[in-house]
Amino acid sequence: MSIVLTTQCRDDVGLIAKVTGLCYEHNLNIVRNNEFVDKAGERFFMRTELTGNVGEQFLPQLRNVLPDGAQVHLHGNEKTKVVLLATKEAHCLGGMLLKQYENAFNVEIQAVVANYDTLKPLVEGFGVPFHLVSHQGLTREQHDDAMAQVIEQYQPDFIGLAKYMRVLSPQFVARFSNQIINIHHSFLPAFIGAKPYHQAFERGVKIIGATAHFVNDELDEGPIIMQDVTQVSHADSAEAMAKMGRDIEKVVFCKAIQLAAEHKLFINGNKTVVFA
Amino acid sequence: MSIVLTTQCRDDVGLIAKVTGLCYEHNLNIVRNNEFVDKAGERFFMRTELTGNVGEQFLPQLRNVLPDGAQVHLHGNEKTKVVLLATKEAHCLGGMLLKQYENAFNVEIQAVVANYDTLKPLVEGFGVPFHLVSHQGLTREQHDDAMAQVIEQYQPDFIGLAKYMRVLSPQFVARFSNQIINIHHSFLPAFIGAKPYHQAFERGVKIIGATAHFVNDELDEGPIIMQDVTQVSHADSAEAMAKMGRDIEKVVFCKAIQLAAEHKLFINGNKTVVFA
Amino acid sequence: MSIVLTTQCRDDVGLIAKVTGLCYEHNLNIVRNNEFVDKAGERFFMRTELTGNVGEQFLPQLRNVLPDGAQVHLHGNEKTKVVLLATKEAHCLGGMLLKQYENAFNVEIQAVVANYDTLKPLVEGFGVPFHLVSHQGLTREQHDDAMAQVIEQYQPDFIGLAKYMRVLSPQFVARFSNQIINIHHSFLPAFIGAKPYHQAFERGVKIIGATAHFVNDELDEGPIIMQDVTQVSHADSAEAMAKMGRDIEKVVFCKAIQLAAEHKLFINGNKTVVFA
Amino acid sequence: MSIVLTTQCRDDVGLIAKVTGLCYEHNLNIVRNNEFVDKAGERFFMRTELTGNVGEQFLPQLRNVLPDGAQVHLHGNEKTKVVLLATKEAHCLGGMLLKQYENAFNVEIQAVVANYDTLKPLVEGFGVPFHLVSHQGLTREQHDDAMAQVIEQYQPDFIGLAKYMRVLSPQFVARFSNQIINIHHSFLPAFIGAKPYHQAFERGVKIIGATAHFVNDELDEGPIIMQDVTQVSHADSAEAMAKMGRDIEKVVFCKAIQLAAEHKLFINGNKTVVFA
Repeated sequence: MSIVLTTQCRDDVGLIAKVTGLCYEHNLNIVRNNEFVDKAGERFFMRTELTGNVGEQFLPQLRNVLPDGAQVHLHGNEKTKVVLLATKEAHCLGGMLLKQYENAFNVEIQAVVANYDTLKPLVEGFGVPFHLVSHQGLTREQHDDAMAQVIEQYQPDFIGLAKYMRVLSPQFVARFSNQIINIHHSFLPAFIGAKPYHQAFERGVKIIGATAHFVNDELDEGPIIMQDVTQVSHADSAEAMAKMGRDIEKVVFCKAIQLAAEHKLFINGNKTVVFA
Repeated sequence: MSIVLTTQCRDDVGLIAKVTGLCYEHNLNIVRNNEFVDKAGERFFMRTELTGNVGEQFLPQLRNVLPDGAQVHLHGNEKTKVVLLATKEAHCLGGMLLKQYENAFNVEIQAVVANYDTLKPLVEGFGVPFHLVSHQGLTREQHDDAMAQVIEQYQPDFIGLAKYMRVLSPQFVARFSNQIINIHHSFLPAFIGAKPYHQAFERGVKIIGATAHFVNDELDEGPIIMQDVTQVSHADSAEAMAKMGRDIEKVVFCKAIQLAAEHKLFINGNKTVVFA
Repeated sequence: MSIVLTTQCRDDVGLIAKVTGLCYEHNLNIVRNNEFVDKAGERFFMRTELTGNVGEQFLPQLRNVLPDGAQVHLHGNEKTKVVLLATKEAHCLGGMLLKQYENAFNVEIQAVVANYDTLKPLVEGFGVPFHLVSHQGLTREQHDDAMAQVIEQYQPDFIGLAKYMRVLSPQFVARFSNQIINIHHSFLPAFIGAKPYHQAFERGVKIIGATAHFVNDELDEGPIIMQDVTQVSHADSAEAMAKMGRDIEKVVFCKAIQLAAEHKLFINGNKTVVFA
Repeated sequence: MSIVLTTQCRDDVGLIAKVTGLCYEHNLNIVRNNEFVDKAGERFFMRTELTGNVGEQFLPQLRNVLPDGAQVHLHGNEKTKVVLLATKEAHCLGGMLLKQYENAFNVEIQAVVANYDTLKPLVEGFGVPFHLVSHQGLTREQHDDAMAQVIEQYQPDFIGLAKYMRVLSPQFVARFSNQIINIHHSFLPAFIGAKPYHQAFERGVKIIGATAHFVNDELDEGPIIMQDVTQVSHADSAEAMAKMGRDIEKVVFCKAIQLAAEHKLFINGNKTVVFA
């Protein structure tokens, strides 16, 4: 079984040599390595798949040879923990539950939190806890706070918005900073906001898409993780586009979560680095 | 050899029966038929590939059975005539010239008009007339008028903007209404305007694209004909995206012109109907 | 709600006019029409979406105007009935169950028949009957006959092999002639037979795929319905290809069943006609 | 401007550390790095983009730290030299000539050798030498030898078969071992041999493709470099498929040559390693 080392820091000369040299000293074998230097931003990103036994001295020594403020993490084979938020639509949520059932990725869906109980039977049918947190009679902040309390008992690595159809408050976004992954039903930055398939139909585009992105305080403006598209024609109504789009949303959302689970995903300002 | 009949008119009951019935009466055999009804717009579009001899009475009789104002056209096997406008970039223009050289489509490139002479050797190497119409010292209207005079001696069916990098005046657009096809180097409606690849890079998208569209008075807002995309990553600079994008632009532009040449393309308000 | 008329018969002149003319006489409005003539095979195929009330005289009159032996069917909005066969793998089966749960297509999964009980909880979690028909101690013919008896009580329109990993006997195939749809985990005709992903890995291909096809007596040789592909690289092991392939298999299988359910699929000798 | 270092050798521990460590000692900055270990074959492949001044001691020192028999090369910014072989079809050849004209890749097309003079005007229009080496009256070996003599005066890095429609003799293949890149008009290993589009039509596939591969002594069996596909339908004749296929062939062939020119392509037994 392999270990994944992720490194990100200020760019400098010799970083690959320093990291891989230390691995060599520690008798760690590199199975796969990816690195990226953002020249403009002067940031260095690396993902290293290793085999061997990582001793206690490895990380401290690694920090020693890297620039100040370097973020280094070792990830074993434990599953990445995810809580999913949903509303009423089943496709992205069901896609995730099925993937977990198939053992198709290294994710543990710890729980689903939804503001309606529509999807409860689906979720519980897969043996996953379902929490109804209705927004009825609550302010956005109160509702988000109620959800956050449920979520925090699970200490998830990531929160996936599996077609959660409400805008999250800045407080919620800040509380789970860099942890929230959304699926937007358009090919961003086209068709930001509501009813993107209707916008796409009105504009007469010939391709529609979906975008997985991290959530920040600007609606549909967070770092893009993954996108995919499908062809449409004049004969497709907005409803037909929405139906075709759901297949894309499901695939893109599951793959984005999988990238996160495999530690292949880094946030770099308003962009992502993805070692696919 | 087949004949193409194109029909567009106000929607009504029995239109397919009326057109195909008349074809049957005239001993015309239908090889391929496509139709589309825009319910909201109440418009009917049909493309019919026929074999047989079309007599003089056919079109008048057809107009008789169709709603008032119907547009019907018979297209034989003569090549579709196209004049291309260019500036300095070779890829879309070269793609078209090569397609013609390969006999890959039923298009005659009558001439190329450009505001620089950069591409003259390429164009003349393919035996196509090249007209330099410099914009130096002219207002936009004067320059467009000078180009229009060159173009009009060719009486083209369509004008293709093969990376013509200037905005056309409303007068020019009106003069060649519904005849001008542009290639825009983004996946519209994302990244309207200048430097779309730089915009795409800044936004951190994971897919870039190109869009062929008819030109109207709103910049990059005309009816979309065709779009295609390609994947990019964090490692691709704006320049790398532009380079990858040029391959997409070339393919999309050539295919859009080919659709027009095969009479598979109808304008429907701000959209197109494409019988691909 | 619309009705679908499917027509297939020997080719002849005026067939479109005859069918659409009769629709017009019966005050049936054509919403969408697709037709195809196989010139070499002299066969005519048409799918017509209609609105209006179809009287009892329509089909007899239609048969009267068509060549002898014409097959004509009217399909209302009732769901297409499907029984799925499975073994141990969840992805194609789960994909179908989830699609049904989402109301994403007009299919009723009547039951699942499997030779292991592995997938029983998944199937029953979606409220679908699960029948275990073990092959232990039975000849292939006996086992197939036992499955056929279970299937026949449901009178399905189609039988979907959702990764059913045994070869079916000619008797079974004949019993459900033109009704059995399989998903093969390669881009046919490449890599017929066992372990296609290992074959693909050994050959060093750069794209892998999946193929949905009707089953006939030649292994992996039946009429192809749909195919899709994904890119792979030198870094992907046979196991990684299999994992990526499962996503393609799931999508292709569900779409093939959907085409059948929407009456967009015709068998034409060893090929299919698909009005997508 | 960057330098590319390519390394391939027997696998061993610490290879990345050794190579990147030596770069660091020599004050060479790594812009981009890719590596791959073929575990089964015990081979290590690495491509390193560097900036800085590489002194004379670098390569000898590098060979010293690597396993015996390591192949290491430094590639500056000089263009990769290619001779193209052709017959009568223009699309792949024209695609390459146009790419060179656009300055779209770092390739110098030194000459074209063809067994007909059909393409002479196209080639010379782009200012590239054209050599007619007719096969009339020659044995295959004599013809191949005549071509080889023309080719050898150019000392090309690669020979591209731009739809050269004859089988090459084993002597020719051995003479230019690992240097010959072919474009085959099918999605290999489907439809090996003659008339693949007719084979594809007969089989009724729904996707066709093209494959660029290195040539060895087994027809269409050499290491695959790149593949791409496009969708087809029941309505596409073999001729229509061939026409659509030519667009794919052109793109795949040009990209395969580009990969070679950018030193992103390694042969690994009967497979390739491609750092795309």
